[in-house]
Order: sequence, then C-alpha cells, then structure tokens
Amino acid sequence: MGKGGMSREDGEEENMAAWLVGLNTLKIQPFTLPPLGPHEVRVRMKAVGICGSDVHYLKTLRCAHFVVKEPMVIGHECAGIIEEVGSDVKTLVPGDRVALEPGISCWRCDYCKEGRYNLCPDMKFFATPPVHGSLANQVVHPADLCFKLPDNVSLEEGAMCEPLSVGVHACRRANVGPETNVLVMGAGPIGLVTMLAARAFGAPRIVIVDVDDHRLSVAKDLGADDIIKVSTDMKDIPEEVALIQKAMATAIDVSFDCAGFNKTMSTALDATRSGGKVCLVGMGHNEMTVPLTPAAAREVDVIGIFRYKNTWPLCLEFLRSGKIDVKPLITHRFGFSQKEVEDAFETSARGGNAIKVMFNL
Amino acid sequence: MGKGGMSREDGEEENMAAWLVGLNTLKIQPFTLPPLGPHEVRVRMKAVGICGSDVHYLKTLRCAHFVVKEPMVIGHECAGIIEEVGSDVKTLVPGDRVALEPGISCWRCDYCKEGRYNLCPDMKFFATPPVHGSLANQVVHPADLCFKLPDNVSLEEGAMCEPLSVGVHACRRANVGPETNVLVMGAGPIGLVTMLAARAFGAPRIVIVDVDDHRLSVAKDLGADDIIKVSTDMKDIPEEVALIQKAMATAIDVSFDCAGFNKTMSTALDATRSGGKVCLVGMGHNEMTVPLTPAAAREVDVIGIFRYKNTWPLCLEFLRSGKIDVKPLITHRFGFSQKEVEDAFETSARGGNAIKVMFNL
Amino acid sequence: MGKGGMSREDGEEENMAAWLVGLNTLKIQPFTLPPLGPHEVRVRMKAVGICGSDVHYLKTLRCAHFVVKEPMVIGHECAGIIEEVGSDVKTLVPGDRVALEPGISCWRCDYCKEGRYNLCPDMKFFATPPVHGSLANQVVHPADLCFKLPDNVSLEEGAMCEPLSVGVHACRRANVGPETNVLVMGAGPIGLVTMLAARAFGAPRIVIVDVDDHRLSVAKDLGADDIIKVSTDMKDIPEEVALIQKAMATAIDVSFDCAGFNKTMSTALDATRSGGKVCLVGMGHNEMTVPLTPAAAREVDVIGIFRYKNTWPLCLEFLRSGKIDVKPLITHRFGFSQKEVEDAFETSARGGNAIKVMFNL
Amino acid sequence: MGKGGMSREDGEEENMAAWLVGLNTLKIQPFTLPPLGPHEVRVRMKAVGICGSDVHYLKTLRCAHFVVKEPMVIGHECAGIIEEVGSDVKTLVPGDRVALEPGISCWRCDYCKEGRYNLCPDMKFFATPPVHGSLANQVVHPADLCFKLPDNVSLEEGAMCEPLSVGVHACRRANVGPETNVLVMGAGPIGLVTMLAARAFGAPRIVIVDVDDHRLSVAKDLGADDIIKVSTDMKDIPEEVALIQKAMATAIDVSFDCAGFNKTMSTALDATRSGGKVCLVGMGHNEMTVPLTPAAAREVDVIGIFRYKNTWPLCLEFLRSGKIDVKPLITHRFGFSQKEVEDAFETSARGGNAIKVMFNL
Repeated sequence: MGKGGMSREDGEEENMAAWLVGLNTLKIQPFTLPPLGPHEVRVRMKAVGICGSDVHYLKTLRCAHFVVKEPMVIGHECAGIIEEVGSDVKTLVPGDRVALEPGISCWRCDYCKEGRYNLCPDMKFFATPPVHGSLANQVVHPADLCFKLPDNVSLEEGAMCEPLSVGVHACRRANVGPETNVLVMGAGPIGLVTMLAARAFGAPRIVIVDVDDHRLSVAKDLGADDIIKVSTDMKDIPEEVALIQKAMATAIDVSFDCAGFNKTMSTALDATRSGGKVCLVGMGHNEMTVPLTPAAAREVDVIGIFRYKNTWPLCLEFLRSGKIDVKPLITHRFGFSQKEVEDAFETSARGGNAIKVMFNL
Repeated sequence: MGKGGMSREDGEEENMAAWLVGLNTLKIQPFTLPPLGPHEVRVRMKAVGICGSDVHYLKTLRCAHFVVKEPMVIGHECAGIIEEVGSDVKTLVPGDRVALEPGISCWRCDYCKEGRYNLCPDMKFFATPPVHGSLANQVVHPADLCFKLPDNVSLEEGAMCEPLSVGVHACRRANVGPETNVLVMGAGPIGLVTMLAARAFGAPRIVIVDVDDHRLSVAKDLGADDIIKVSTDMKDIPEEVALIQKAMATAIDVSFDCAGFNKTMSTALDATRSGGKVCLVGMGHNEMTVPLTPAAAREVDVIGIFRYKNTWPLCLEFLRSGKIDVKPLITHRFGFSQKEVEDAFETSARGGNAIKVMFNL
Repeated sequence: MGKGGMSREDGEEENMAAWLVGLNTLKIQPFTLPPLGPHEVRVRMKAVGICGSDVHYLKTLRCAHFVVKEPMVIGHECAGIIEEVGSDVKTLVPGDRVALEPGISCWRCDYCKEGRYNLCPDMKFFATPPVHGSLANQVVHPADLCFKLPDNVSLEEGAMCEPLSVGVHACRRANVGPETNVLVMGAGPIGLVTMLAARAFGAPRIVIVDVDDHRLSVAKDLGADDIIKVSTDMKDIPEEVALIQKAMATAIDVSFDCAGFNKTMSTALDATRSGGKVCLVGMGHNEMTVPLTPAAAREVDVIGIFRYKNTWPLCLEFLRSGKIDVKPLITHRFGFSQKEVEDAFETSARGGNAIKVMFNL
Repeated sequence: MGKGGMSREDGEEENMAAWLVGLNTLKIQPFTLPPLGPHEVRVRMKAVGICGSDVHYLKTLRCAHFVVKEPMVIGHECAGIIEEVGSDVKTLVPGDRVALEPGISCWRCDYCKEGRYNLCPDMKFFATPPVHGSLANQVVHPADLCFKLPDNVSLEEGAMCEPLSVGVHACRRANVGPETNVLVMGAGPIGLVTMLAARAFGAPRIVIVDVDDHRLSVAKDLGADDIIKVSTDMKDIPEEVALIQKAMATAIDVSFDCAGFNKTMSTALDATRSGGKVCLVGMGHNEMTVPLTPAAAREVDVIGIFRYKNTWPLCLEFLRSGKIDVKPLITHRFGFSQKEVEDAFETSARGGNAIKVMFNL
C-alpha cells in the first residue's frame, strides 16, 4: 500500500475521494481504505450518481436526524469493477462489473433476523454520517452487497439500481401487481423511478402529477398513461382530485406520494379508492396536516418507506430484460476532478432539467 | 307469540320502535315490518345498546357524511329471539337466541366478492340513514347475519358483539398476536373493547392512555398491564411518549388510536417502534396535523378501520370461552318506554361513568 | 324482439341447447329459460369452448365426485351478447358483449363472506350436475357475473377467460410476480394458460415440460423460455430434474403441476427450491405417491387450486393490453348443429393437435 | 477465570463433551473450545435435552441426508449460564442464564436476507454433522443466539425452547390464531409441543390423535379438548376421519401431522376443511402415498416445516406468562457421566412413558 493512500507500491496512485468537509464544501482528498476482510471485495468505482440527500448534506450538513460532524466521503449510488476479493469470497472475481448496495446491517438484531434489515438500528450506510460514502476511486465493501451486472447492463445503469430500489421497495410494500392502478404524486427522480417500477410490477394504468411541465413531459415520455399538472394551492385539491380520477378512468388502488407535502398527501388520500393504499415516499413536510381520518374510515392505509431491502437482483433483472430503461434518467455526466465535482453538485442542486447527474470515474 | 304471531289485527300488539324524528327528539312509534323473505328471519329484540354514533345522530342529525333527512328508527347493537324464519332458512328456528350483525351488503360489487364487504358502497346498515335501525320490538333481518348465542352467553352480551367487533376487526387488520405489544390511546368504550380484543388475540402487554382517571381505573380493572394519564397539551407529547415507552418496557408493536385527535395520533406515531403499525380507530379530528413523515420513514404504517366483517363468530367464541368478559362494560340499563328511551340517551350522552347503556326490551 | 329473437310465441325460434342425455350422447334439444330476475340478464350465446371436463362428463357421466343423473345442458366456457336486462341491472344494456363467469355462489356461507367464494359448498356452476350449462342459444345469468368485453377483445377471446382464469387463479395463489421463476409441468390447455398467466404476472423465466413434441413446440411458440421433453418413467426423474434445473439456470421458485401424475408431481417437488411452492393444478392421479416429506423438510409448500374467483376483470385486462394472446390456443371451430356438436366433442376428445375447440353460435 | 473455570492450565478442569464416535457409541471426552470471537459468549451448559434426531444419529449415524463421518459432539436442546462474553457483546454478562438457539446461519445468502434463515444452505447447527453439538460442559456461541431467561423460567425450561420452537414455527407458518380449530396427528414430543403452541396462539379447540393410550392420556392432561385413538390400518381412515370430525364438532382449519406416515397424512388431508392447511411436521415416511389431489381440489394446502426461526423470544414469553407449561414434558433426568449418558439415550430410545429426557450438567 505504501505511504498515505491505497497504493501498494512506490509510484502507484493514491485512492482519492470526494469529501464533504464543511457547508457547501467538497474536496477531493486521499481516502485510506480499510484492510480487506475475508468476505469483502475491493471495488474500483466507475459510476456514481448524485442523490437529493447528497445535495442536502452539502447544503445543510444534515438530513432528517443525521448530522455531519466530521469530514465525510459523499456518494452512495454506485457501480464499479472488482479489483480484489477477500479470502472467503466465492461468488466474485477481479474484473467483475458490480452494482453496490450501500448499507451494511448488523445481522444480529430482530429487524435483520426477520428480513427487514433496512430498519436495522446499527446500519452502516454509505455517506450517512459518520459512515463514509463511495464517491472515491476505490472502496472496500462486503461481497454479498456487490451484485454482478448482466452483460447488457452498463455501469451507469448499475449505479441507477440505488434510486430505482426505492421505487421497487415502495411497489413491493404497496403490493403493486397487474391489477393495481397507480397514482404517482411528483415527477422528480423518485417519482419517475417509482413510476418505472410500478410499470415493471405490472400496473396497467399509471397517472402522474406534478407542478412542472417539463417534469411531466419527461414522465409522459417515460410511459405515464396520463399526466396532470397541478397547483400548489390547497384550495384546488377537490378539483384536482376529480381531474386525476377522471384521468385514471378506474379506481386508484395505490398512490405513491413521492413529494411528501401537505397538498400532495391530501390529494393522494382523497383520490385513492376505499381499501387502497397511499405510500408515503417523499419527505417534503415533516409534520403533516392531512385528511387522515376520512381516509382511514375508508380503510385507506398509509404505508411508510425507508430505503429498501433485497432489491438489487430484481432491479438488475428489470434492466437486463428491458422491462425498465433508466438510461433516459441520466441527463448529465461529469468526470472526477475538483472542478467537475463542484459543477456536478451545482447542476444537481439547481434542478431544472437535470434528473440524474452521474460521475464517470 | 300468541295467536297469529306478530300482527296488526285487532287485539294483537303493534310493533313499536324508537324513531329519531328531529333534532334531540326520539319518539316511540309504530314500525311496520317488511314482508319476510325466504332467507330472512323475524327477530323479537331483547337487548339493544346505545352507540356513540346513535347519540351523535340524535344531537346533530348527522354522522360523518351521513345525514338524517327522514324520520328513522335508531339503534344497531342488538340481540333477540327468533320468532319466525323464512322458507329457505335452514340454520335457525323460532326460539333461537341470536346476535345481529347490522349491515347488509350487496354481494355483487368487487368489495363484497373479495371479502371486504364492510367497504361495500351499497351497504344497508341499521340506523345509518336512510336505513332503519333495530331499537324496536321486532325486526326482519337476513338469517345469515343472525348468529346463534352459545348457552352461556346472554342476550346483552350478544348485543355487545357489535362494539366488540370494532376491536376485533382492528386487531385483525393490525395482525395482533402473541408477539404484539399494544398501546391503546383512549379508554372510552371503543378503547376498552379494543384492549379486550387485543388481549384475546394474545397481546402479552397492553398499556392504555387517557385523560380521565375514572376511565383509566376501569381499564386497569379490565386488565390493562399499565395505565398512563396524559394531558391534552401537544407540548407534553415527548415526555408522555417517554412515559408510555417506559411503561411498556419493550417495543410497542401496534398502537390503536381510539380517540383520533391530533395529540393521540401524534403520540401513537412517535411511540410505535420502527416497522410497527398505528391503527386509527377513533374519529376525533377530521383533518389531522401529525408527524406522519418521520413515522413513515421508520416504516410505521397507518391502518384504517371501517366497521368490521366476519366478526360475530369470533366475538361469540371469545365470550363463550371467557377470553373476553364484556359484562363489566354494561353500566346502565333501561326499559323500552318513551321516558326511559329519553333518559337512556341522556345517560349515554352525558358520559361520566357510563360506558355502555343497554335497553332490555 | 322481433324475428330472430328468443321467443316462445308462434313463428319465433325456440331456445336450443346441447344436452348430455346419456353416455357419449349429446342432443340439441329445446331448453326453457327461467324467468329473468331483477339482477339477471338474458344473454345470446356466441362463443362456447369445450373443456376437458365437458369431454369427461360425455365419456363417463361423471367428473370427480359429481355424477350426471339427469339430462343436462353442457358447456361453461362462454361469451355472448346481452339481449335483455333485469329491472335492477344498472351496469349492462342490450347489445353489450360479455364474457360469463360460470359459477353462482350463495353469498351466505363463511367462504363467500371471506372472499373465497370458489369454495362455496352451495355453488351453482354451469354444467356441473345438476346445474345446466351454457352451450345454448341463450342463457339467463346474474348480471354481476357478466363482464363487458373491451372493444378489442373478441367474443371467442371472451370465452377463453374461463380456462385462462384457472391459470390466473393459480398464479395468484402461488404469488407469482416479477421475481418468480416458474416451472410448468404439462403443456396441455391448462399448462399453456398457466404459462401465459405466469408471464403476464411478470415471471422472468418459464420452463415447460411435457412428453409430447407437438405440445412443447406450441409452448415454445407461445413464449416458453425453454422446453424439456420427458418420459413417463419414474426412474428418469433425477436426470430430468437436473435437466430442468439446468434449463432454468436459476432457482425454481414456483412449479405448477398441470398434469397431476405421480411423476409430474414428484419432479416438481424435487425441482423446486427450498421455500418455494408447488401448485397442484392438474388431476391426473387421485391418490399420489410422491416424495412429500423431503419437500416439506425444505419448506416447499403444496398449494391447491379449485377453479377461480374474481378473475374475469384481470383476464380481460390481460387480453385488452395484449399481455396475453389466447387466439393461438383456439385451434378448431364448429357451428351449433347436431352434427357439428358431435364432431367438435370428438375433436376435443381425440386431442392430437387440438388445443381449444370453440363453438360459434 | 480462576479455580473452577474452563481452563487448559495446570490443575484446572478440562471441558468435556459427549462424543458420538461410532454406531451406538457415545464417549465423554475432552472437547477443545474455539477462541472467543468479539460477538460470542462462552456458556457453561446446565440443561441439555435429548431429541429424537440425537437418538437417530446414535442408532444409524445419519438423519435425512446428513451423515456422521467423523466423531461429533451430540446434543442441541440446551440452556446454560454465561461465563465469558466477547469484546463487542453488549447484551449479556457473565452469570446470565440463557437458552441457546442452535443454528448459526451465514447472513449472506438470499434466505438469510429475506428472513428465512432456517433455510440457509450454509447453516451451522449443533450436532448436525460436521458441526459439533452442545452436550458439553461449555460451548462458545454467538451472543445473539443466547436468550436471557426470565427469572421465573428454569434452565430446563430454557432447554425446552428448542423442541417448543418447532411447534411455534409450525403454528406461525400455518397462521394459527383464535379462530383456528386444530387437529394434531401424533402425541409424541413434537405433537405435544405443537398442541401446546397452538393453544398459546389461541386455538379454541384442539383434537389430538395417536395409536397409544398413554400418550393420549398425557395429551389430555396437557389440555387437548378431545383425544382419538386410531389404528395403523389404512382401511380405517374414513371411519376415523368421521370420529375426528365429530370430536372437533366444527370445521378443522389446520391439521399438524406430527407423525408423517401415509396414514396420518391421509387422515389429515381428508379431515381438514376446504381452504384449510395441513402442516407436515413429522418425518415418518419419506415417499408418501396420500390423497393429495382431492385435497388440493378443495384448496387444502400442505405446509412444510424445517426447524424454526426467531422463535426463542416468543417461547420464553409463553413460558414466562404461563401460557405454556413445558415442565410436565420432562419425564426423566440424568447427570453427565459416561454411564448416565448411555442410560439417558437408552431411555429416550425406548420411548415408553419417556417424553423428554434431560441432562443436568
């Protein structure tokens, strides 16, 4: 390894990573890799996407109840190529192209043992403080969280498994299938991957709602059956619910609120059929003022979502088979220099026509 | 029965019922029974309880979106004795003591066919306008909604199957079992039946919360493992959540909000463990301001409840086996005269130490 | 109704039906329709398929524990055009093209109320003795069991909803979705519709097995990922299981035994992964000699199937959207004369390259 | 550790264990413990029960497809006292009394990640070759598989969590609750713990069947609602099914076949109501000849069972609360000498009135 970085011999490259070192400040700096455990692999990172939460950390040094107190490597949507495997790794060899699931759970708590490891209180998750992320030349990661890419799936598509996993997990929790007509509130990146996932789970009819024309036109291009432009005014809810229900033309079985504001959630609760489900994915408002009681009195259940579990194999199958195409979501690409890292985050933060901003390392 | 059975001919009794004829006005008046269909039975009513919704109709002529526009016979918690059976009824004979499930669904819509008949949009339900209720000497009802009482279950206990069904349905939807530690918000009649149902489903530990000392002491007597007195001030939530969690001494798997106010629901959402469920049973507030997003982000689901389905056989089994004893809930009894009907509804409306007010006809 | 309508008056046509009057004997004879109830419709039948059970009744006068004791109209896979609607029918009008669900359940028993009406002990089902079937010019049927065809779905395709429903119900009970790799034992009509249904539910990979080359080539044309020809010799099971698993190239999550013989069921039990499901659809052998214990000790569950419930809307959606194309299954067509009825049943009984034999009335 | 502890130094005791060294041959011999990992504990064993599989290994050197090829320490039903904890263990301290879950799964495979770790192909399980068991003075085990005993639960009762777990897992998989009337085929140790578990899950009525009067009288004493003595003759099945159904007096929702013979399974399949479940727990016959098709055609599902998962906390809660009393099952006790080990296994092998044979170490 030699002095200072990941590098085992004189004259070899150091391992560099993008560190969040303070408010609005990212620095590319050396990142020392831990020793490789028997069930771990060392991965050369090739594609890393920027998530809204990455931007949020950059702009506020926090996200929900997580606070960045020490410099932290950022990034968690990633794919790369295996460089080295631990002594007990049987399933991967150097050269394998893999997508990385970013969270390492404890496997000792009740949540882990019952198959809900995403709720593990001891989860170590890329770029959730104080755990370092994956926007780096190389990372060390458990082999069982590295999923080999099918030949026809690119490294960038591999990195997209992470946001797509949120949509897949939401569809699973809401039990979307070929009889489930779906409403999606919000046509941002998460709304779009949820729409794509719902379609792949068989949803026969999907209506998507947003305040922004461009986002809606993207959603339409990506396969929405109908799109509805709405306002941000709570007073418009009854009229907009009527429009949405008319656009669906049949009962709305499941709604995904991928924005998470009072208005979007109220709309979803009112629009969904008795006995249906509203899945709260977005996190716009923390406290919510919504017509929960009339919805509950129609047995409309509210389903919560936290990250995902066991989604990578299914995401890769959806990408392999072509049931989902995530390539149109990748709107901007950047290299891994100090300047480009800064530009990339600004592009992602600005929104506009950016959906997914991707680093190619 | 005497000669001729129920009849409007000379010398024979008329069928009388308690009619809601205007705001705060109940009148005992004749009630003409419909002809007896082949699958129906005629039941002489013996025990009818007063529900909060009955009082609500009396005081406001409405409940949720249902409005009383024409005089309507009130009452829907009831049990009686079979007087006559339709030509195709095989399962009941005159003299059988039965508890009545009050709702007749259409059996032609998707909800009915999929086993969620409580959501049937064409439900005809005792004392939900414009359908007449059952506080009457006799009613005609489908035989399959009349459930024979075990020998050791009284007619009054039979009438209690109706409120108990709400608790049973809530426990079923929340999947309460021997591993489910339960929090109940609200120790009114519905909170108490939910507590009793949760215990019968096997809940090892139940904590119940209310603002009223008397209600809490009743809950304790009925078997709560611990009781917590709370305020109505939203500011106290964090402290009260801590007290509740301490009283439970283990993770709260399922919370039932049997009050349905901003404060009770916020408390339930915060107190319930990640991956748990909050079941919204009470209907205190319509629009709710609650910390829904942080709960959803821990995959705490909100489960709605509307009435019940297929609950009478299980309620009767719980009563027969002694797993549930509803007799302590019946605090007041009245006969079926104009004066007593008025007094009974006043007693129920006043609350105080009244839990269930029962008519003996 | 005028000329050409159903009428019992002079000069107007009689309603004719194909009666099973004795062993191997079908006769086209007049069939008197019952009066039209308020929730019923009168349907002019246009397409009726022949099912294996119809042939079985013709050849043996029995099927499972059902015995034909009186002459009975045969046929139950059908679609037609509404001619008249009962007084309370709101959802259909004369001229509507509809597919008919053949079973009328009681809606009073526990099975009906819990949403498993297919298990109703009082089911009245077309052409299950002593109930008459639907190979007739006209039938009277409950409106809620007549499902309007989308414009792009033909009457013949409508009649195919019945066999397709078996596959759909099997996939639902086995919980087939986009992560379920499926093995189908038997490429007869039921094996083929199960394969088509599994694909429509999202199964990424389907391997189908039969003893017959022609059937396998049909299955391949209809979309099987791989086909395996097997023997009828029990000794070959280990070798064939290895071939099947190799063809699947991943774990077999769910197997459908659409043949129902000792060998097919043994193969399915051995081939399915631990924790998977074997769904027994076919009824070749009654008593079975199979390695049930080693399968159970791997938590491979055996799922039973009886007919279907609530499948017509989904079948029609699959046909409308093109997710399923049943037209290639209809290999032979006949008119509704004495001679053609006899020829059609002989064609169906002979098997050979006949998959579905259809009457056009 | 000082005097009396496990130590390999001069003057200190050696760790001894009961080794299966050949057919019918057990030897108490030294057993070297592995080093203590950071998440592991060292447990002084105090109570170890003998399981049928232990006897089977002794008598045949195999069980199912597992074969004893090297000397192996036997025993897996156990409880003891913590002597030492690894550096990262936070939940246990020396002196804690614990029951041990015997299987260590890999936590890297799909089964583990999806919460079905009992199906892990890399499971390391006490006394399943080539893994050593726990009939030893001390063992080293993962801390998260050691469950602290409530104060009112003895070490012997703690050891009984292992067989009880089989019953608990079976009841969970069959979804037993307060509406589930249960038939148990076989009143051996597993039949009895399944009966006790079913009762604790709320089963209102349980009928148990065996060929042996003594076993049946034990079952009756332990709380069976009715007992039925049956023959081993297949011809008696119809008559016995009638007797069983009469004894149940209501529909049999779930049957547990805890014997696993052609006759017991055939009886269970025939006796269970349409839409019910038969859970195959016993492993009497490998290949089975049973009426599977008629059962499947009534949607009676066959549920397989392999060991258990996540059962210890619930078992301990059942024991703590008194919902289950396993003490009457412990019929014989032995010390840990060569002679007593031999006698104990002979006692267990002989059967007779022995239910559970327990070592006190």
